[in-house]
Amino acid sequence: MIPPRWGDLGLTEAQQLAHIAWDPGALEVARGLSRRLDAVLIHAPVSRLVYDCNRAPDMAGAMPARSEVHDIPGNTDISPAERLARTEAIYLPWTEGLHGLIARRIALGLRPVIVTIHSFTPVFNGKPRRVEFGVINDADAALPVAILNAARKLTRLQAELNAPYSAKDDVTHTLRVQATPYGLPNAMLEIRNDLIATAEAADAMADQLAPVLNMGLVEIQKQAKAS
Amino acid sequence: MIPPRWGDLGLTEAQQLAHIAWDPGALEVARGLSRRLDAVLIHAPVSRLVYDCNRAPDMAGAMPARSEVHDIPGNTDISPAERLARTEAIYLPWTEGLHGLIARRIALGLRPVIVTIHSFTPVFNGKPRRVEFGVINDADAALPVAILNAARKLTRLQAELNAPYSAKDDVTHTLRVQATPYGLPNAMLEIRNDLIATAEAADAMADQLAPVLNMGLVEIQKQAKAS
Repeated sequence: MIPPRWGDLGLTEAQQLAHIAWDPGALEVARGLSRRLDAVLIHAPVSRLVYDCNRAPDMAGAMPARSEVHDIPGNTDISPAERLARTEAIYLPWTEGLHGLIARRIALGLRPVIVTIHSFTPVFNGKPRRVEFGVINDADAALPVAILNAARKLTRLQAELNAPYSAKDDVTHTLRVQATPYGLPNAMLEIRNDLIATAEAADAMADQLAPVLNMGLVEIQKQAKAS
Repeated sequence: MIPPRWGDLGLTEAQQLAHIAWDPGALEVARGLSRRLDAVLIHAPVSRLVYDCNRAPDMAGAMPARSEVHDIPGNTDISPAERLARTEAIYLPWTEGLHGLIARRIALGLRPVIVTIHSFTPVFNGKPRRVEFGVINDADAALPVAILNAARKLTRLQAELNAPYSAKDDVTHTLRVQATPYGLPNAMLEIRNDLIATAEAADAMADQLAPVLNMGLVEIQKQAKAS
């Protein structure tokens, strides 16, 4: 997950496998949802400690010097040239690839729905988190609210809106760049990673969430027709 | 201004030179401002009747079938394939080129200021317009308001906020895509085209507006330091 060009960023092997370096289980859930919903899946190609594609190049979290309780030695005192190099190597192709895909569909008269998928750690800075499934909105809350309602109807997950964090924490960058300017329906999903710790558990979660997303999408289509 | 690939879009020569096909004088003012402020200038490469770079691919105005009182024969019944072709030929390189330029500067720790420059016709649908200099805001009104105040202090131009139109009319697409998601200061400027009808008049307008933009920028820097 850390290409040779960036070595190990000064991290132990255990740290490289911890949630600070990636979102455990999120990609497996995303793959499961993509298959079930016939949706295109685009995922980050490297550890978020090299570059977190869900952050603008000037945000501290793009190449974090510290994550939860861990210092990231390879990310302290990053020079402007190195910051630019990582932006060009990772952020720009990611952003432009996504944008091209979405703009081409818009040109063809389609209205793609943008859903970003993440996982969060059950204990953060020593505090346990009760929420299991968080739905986070950027400027337009219609789809997130519809997904939340569907999750409460169809599952027993502890589902909450804008938890464990919200757009104020700058976690919706991808939605802000790709969906909000085009008025596309969008939502950010956060799944507690202890619930998707194995491939089987992640697939079972995708099985649970696919009908939830479908119900949410049907609901906002109804709302759009009614208005 | 209309590349051979798109012929004349069915327009007379007079129509191709009218304000419906471009913003007369705007590029000359932009060039004058760019020189005076040492600012990078990026301008659309083709007539807005082929593709208006300040519109998303699904907006009617991107490839308008009608503009003011004129039908645009080459733009009626555009097929999805042609809509996609124009998006790929014009909108995508424009958007991605701008985005790359801005993101690289952000990565280097700079905070580029995004100002879009347009002109408007003094008589629209038979109604004369009194406003001479319009400053239009997207989500963040700080810079537009500062520019408006500076224009009222430094010039005798009839200056107004969000005139002759506003973000509700979908005219701030470029700001929405390029500036708002990154929290960059931004503004859209509209100049009545009878005031910049010759190269000399456009240069004189740039001479008038350069100190206005400078004063606006100094003002928002003051505000940023105070907050």
